[in-house]
Amino acid sequence: MNYKTLISASAGAALLPTFALAQDAAPDIQPYILTTLLFLVGGFLVFWMAAGFAMLEAGLVRSKNVTMQLTKNIALFSIASIMYWLIGFNLMYPGDGWWVSGWMGPWFSITALEPVGLAAADASLDYASVGSDFFFQLMFVAATASIVSGVLAERIKLWPFLIFVTVLTGVMYPISGSWQWGGGWLSEMGFSDFAGSTIVHSVGGWAALAGALVLGARLGKYKDGKVIPMPGSNLALATLGTFILWLGWFGFNGGSQLAAGTVGDITDISRIFANTNMAAAAGAIAALVLTQIMYKKVDLTMVLNGALAGLVSITAEPLAPTLFGALWIGAVGGVIVVFAVPFLDKLKIDDVVGAIPVHLFAGIWGTIAVVFYNGDASLVTQITGIVAYGVFTFVVSYILWMVLKGVMGIRVSEEAEIQGLDTSELGMEAYPDFSKG
Amino acid sequence: MNYKTLISASAGAALLPTFALAQDAAPDIQPYILTTLLFLVGGFLVFWMAAGFAMLEAGLVRSKNVTMQLTKNIALFSIASIMYWLIGFNLMYPGDGWWVSGWMGPWFSITALEPVGLAAADASLDYASVGSDFFFQLMFVAATASIVSGVLAERIKLWPFLIFVTVLTGVMYPISGSWQWGGGWLSEMGFSDFAGSTIVHSVGGWAALAGALVLGARLGKYKDGKVIPMPGSNLALATLGTFILWLGWFGFNGGSQLAAGTVGDITDISRIFANTNMAAAAGAIAALVLTQIMYKKVDLTMVLNGALAGLVSITAEPLAPTLFGALWIGAVGGVIVVFAVPFLDKLKIDDVVGAIPVHLFAGIWGTIAVVFYNGDASLVTQITGIVAYGVFTFVVSYILWMVLKGVMGIRVSEEAEIQGLDTSELGMEAYPDFSKG
Amino acid sequence: MNYKTLISASAGAALLPTFALAQDAAPDIQPYILTTLLFLVGGFLVFWMAAGFAMLEAGLVRSKNVTMQLTKNIALFSIASIMYWLIGFNLMYPGDGWWVSGWMGPWFSITALEPVGLAAADASLDYASVGSDFFFQLMFVAATASIVSGVLAERIKLWPFLIFVTVLTGVMYPISGSWQWGGGWLSEMGFSDFAGSTIVHSVGGWAALAGALVLGARLGKYKDGKVIPMPGSNLALATLGTFILWLGWFGFNGGSQLAAGTVGDITDISRIFANTNMAAAAGAIAALVLTQIMYKKVDLTMVLNGALAGLVSITAEPLAPTLFGALWIGAVGGVIVVFAVPFLDKLKIDDVVGAIPVHLFAGIWGTIAVVFYNGDASLVTQITGIVAYGVFTFVVSYILWMVLKGVMGIRVSEEAEIQGLDTSELGMEAYPDFSKG
Repeated sequence: MNYKTLISASAGAALLPTFALAQDAAPDIQPYILTTLLFLVGGFLVFWMAAGFAMLEAGLVRSKNVTMQLTKNIALFSIASIMYWLIGFNLMYPGDGWWVSGWMGPWFSITALEPVGLAAADASLDYASVGSDFFFQLMFVAATASIVSGVLAERIKLWPFLIFVTVLTGVMYPISGSWQWGGGWLSEMGFSDFAGSTIVHSVGGWAALAGALVLGARLGKYKDGKVIPMPGSNLALATLGTFILWLGWFGFNGGSQLAAGTVGDITDISRIFANTNMAAAAGAIAALVLTQIMYKKVDLTMVLNGALAGLVSITAEPLAPTLFGALWIGAVGGVIVVFAVPFLDKLKIDDVVGAIPVHLFAGIWGTIAVVFYNGDASLVTQITGIVAYGVFTFVVSYILWMVLKGVMGIRVSEEAEIQGLDTSELGMEAYPDFSKG
Repeated sequence: MNYKTLISASAGAALLPTFALAQDAAPDIQPYILTTLLFLVGGFLVFWMAAGFAMLEAGLVRSKNVTMQLTKNIALFSIASIMYWLIGFNLMYPGDGWWVSGWMGPWFSITALEPVGLAAADASLDYASVGSDFFFQLMFVAATASIVSGVLAERIKLWPFLIFVTVLTGVMYPISGSWQWGGGWLSEMGFSDFAGSTIVHSVGGWAALAGALVLGARLGKYKDGKVIPMPGSNLALATLGTFILWLGWFGFNGGSQLAAGTVGDITDISRIFANTNMAAAAGAIAALVLTQIMYKKVDLTMVLNGALAGLVSITAEPLAPTLFGALWIGAVGGVIVVFAVPFLDKLKIDDVVGAIPVHLFAGIWGTIAVVFYNGDASLVTQITGIVAYGVFTFVVSYILWMVLKGVMGIRVSEEAEIQGLDTSELGMEAYPDFSKG
Repeated sequence: MNYKTLISASAGAALLPTFALAQDAAPDIQPYILTTLLFLVGGFLVFWMAAGFAMLEAGLVRSKNVTMQLTKNIALFSIASIMYWLIGFNLMYPGDGWWVSGWMGPWFSITALEPVGLAAADASLDYASVGSDFFFQLMFVAATASIVSGVLAERIKLWPFLIFVTVLTGVMYPISGSWQWGGGWLSEMGFSDFAGSTIVHSVGGWAALAGALVLGARLGKYKDGKVIPMPGSNLALATLGTFILWLGWFGFNGGSQLAAGTVGDITDISRIFANTNMAAAAGAIAALVLTQIMYKKVDLTMVLNGALAGLVSITAEPLAPTLFGALWIGAVGGVIVVFAVPFLDKLKIDDVVGAIPVHLFAGIWGTIAVVFYNGDASLVTQITGIVAYGVFTFVVSYILWMVLKGVMGIRVSEEAEIQGLDTSELGMEAYPDFSKG
């Protein structure tokens, strides 16, 4: 995802012929194969994050809304898969597809893959296969959509949510993503967001925040100036989801090196893996210690979100920091979560799973923190990028949510919400055999 | 698994010496290493599908039968691992093992691996290590057995089921598998089944269908002409299982390219990953939309099975189709599930998890769909293969189930079934702390 | 982790220049890239084992202690990540880090990674990147700590447990680990423990055993000479955890080959994968058959632990045995579990999840079994290693537990234990919506 890395990889490739000549002109296909492999392995790890979001959210909603949350998660991933093929990929990376026969010009063409049995002479030997690139990029847009579903849980109707996801994954994310990863104006300005603290995570957070404002809080959440706790129904699932996300993040950040065929690239990926893990660990420990100090009791959901905030925080620059850098950047992420969750409640913004602190606030923090270790990044440019993504995503999302609200309504009835979305909207309980406490 | 790919890989290897000579006779070991790596990574992904089946099935049975379902799943995988070593692999691929000292001729020998520290001169440099090949193939036979366990859940005794699995994985699957992947008559005839829509999935489905007919429906399932719903106890687990299977399928289909060391092969694997994902997404969306239209409510279990049916549908030919091809082939799979589940109920065939629609019906569909994108495939040959696998597996399975029924009984007592298999057969509840609704 | 393999890899590397010269002095970077890749993939698989331990333990404790068990697991992994960076890695492998500026001499320095964009000329081309090595090794120390948490569940306080983990992962494990994998005295003596049956698993088991003795059994576990069953609350989670661990073990054992860039190495890794799977399957089947014979009912928790014991048993030597060797070595592991679980109960040693039989007893067995297939191993040396690790870990752990007991107390109050640690210590239930049976 690091456009500059991609550029330098291409530049490096210019030196290859010399080496290739030494081998009687046999082209060096190893970097192509290894980078393609990186995208495939990185891609299936990020795919796995879809399951992580599903489990995290299913664990953090009440049992009467679990089936709905699961349905939304598998549906949003499927929609993202189709929309990013239909419009998104070529909108975000114009001209990157293979043999594209545009049906609405170079922008709105359908993604096409290389022909079967591609010859080495026809391949982009300085990069990777289009198929693997598409596969990898697709998983990122799905992650953005997953963030939205968690915030708006337990009260939003299924179909308006899925329509929003359709627009988000097909149009909104690809347009703003192209500003940086498509080589657009922010990239030219020198904005730096290695694997997407802003481009993926904040964008999901802004879209969700707009939705939360339009949708309103759950019934009874804020009553007489008090915040009523609505504990998640299955913390084992929530923990599983967090571990899945942590695992998938190695692909998210590591794959964003966009190259694996040289000593420098594979060693950089190792740095990224080690830093990513460190930031997550530090975020978890920060939340663990802080909740112990503040509340005299460790709060598991804060620890889980602390780990995730650590991951989001390091995502804008997982390569340049030292392990100590990853530690403190991730720890700040964990601290942000502990303070931001009650802060949102004070504002009566009802974020069911804590995704706005994790993905939006820690995403902003991570994008700013780039300047501490990456000498090429400037604070002004970083803030420019953060604001640009924020304004665009929030405004377009807000309008879209308002339109959906006006046209078809986005919120279930009070009765349905009290009864739970599973029986009222879907007629199917997630745990029908267990009596409710 | 694509025998033809394997042939052409060998043919391509004949050209290698020229290239190798140019490098002072240093043999090109990279394709061997990369294909072996493909089998190891693909193999652990398909291993992971065993967990996926276990979670899917544990989630779709009632809570009183969960321990039994889990026991069957871990046991069947273990049995498959042993039987495929003891008989299966060499029966399916005669002569593929290393230094095989047959104890019943070339067919019934025990699988042996290469010696430690194999020298490059002794390796099959045009393919991969026997150990990785065995590891990868083994995971496929386990998948076949998993399909059976879901269909027959909640009423079959443990031991007769495990005996059936022993024969299925040690003898039945290897014999029919050898017709195609062992280079047998169907392969010579030109049958095409890239990763096993028929050879793995339909075979599992036929074996299960025979079992369902011999075993009969669950008590009270079909009463006074009505179908009594028996909802699964944990839809979060079922969704997790689906995501696991989806993830594992990238290894299932991608690894079946059987080669990863050339630009053409790794690019083909990228196509396969992208197509596999698209088919799953399309199957899920097809079931989502169709259940909304038909029942006015989205049915999560149908969406999950729709995704799986999309995956099975693309498995016979995940390489040749375009992404649009993968989309509509997968979507038809999803449609099949929505109509086939009530259709089986009409026939009073009690398939607890919906595995017959997913694996048998969508498997047949996928095998037929090969003709739309693979120019070498003929409809007649495809149908010949489908029928051959169906007749062989169904007849042998039916006889075996009848023998087991006659000899030891395959069904638990009525009391045991009503009480639940967990306490009656195993004396152990899966969720002892939760009171039942 | 096999130090000798590492040595021979270095020796082999001495031959590389010849080959490189033939290519006009272009260094052969493929082994470095592939071994680094092995550590990254193996590392994320072993990371995944952290989730496996968490799910296994959360499934095997009672529902009133699930949140605490989850909290301990994510916290211990995070602490291990930080401590192994701060002290452990350089203590265990002195001099292996990059540009280490020691703050307490060569031993107690902080782990540093290679600089960004490492040049090939600066890399250890005969091995792998420091970042990937650190990442891989780190996951092993976390596994050791996970073992402890399972044994001491349901009664230990959070903070003393976490302090113990801090010392275990930062100091104890690295010191004893260096004896073998750091090239210390046991390595020189010829001790053989390929991936850590003793160094990782037994060490975890000894630390846990010491803790169990100091801590005492759960209230009401041993009453009037009887063992009161306290069944796990979620066998689906426990099974999921087992499958996760099984999957992760391919990385654990396979990655411990420490090299992937030659035909011999990648073929050896294939052997290791196949053997690892076989040992797990055999352990599961052994426990399945044995519990059927002994108790007339299959015991799922024994089958799960049987699979894990099979995995631990093969871990000391997953390469040399034939598949039949892996089968019987793993099966003995499964048998050990079935007998050792009631044996510990007879001694009133309360091991909540059965981790002492699985990791300590089967770990000892596996370390002894090395002599059957590895001609270089001697029984005396193996026993020397087992005793050395046992005495060191048990004694230091015992002292540390006693100190913690004296200073701050390690056990929750009787009321807290009866009420459950989730509400008493953390104020948060794992399954708040389900009424308790």
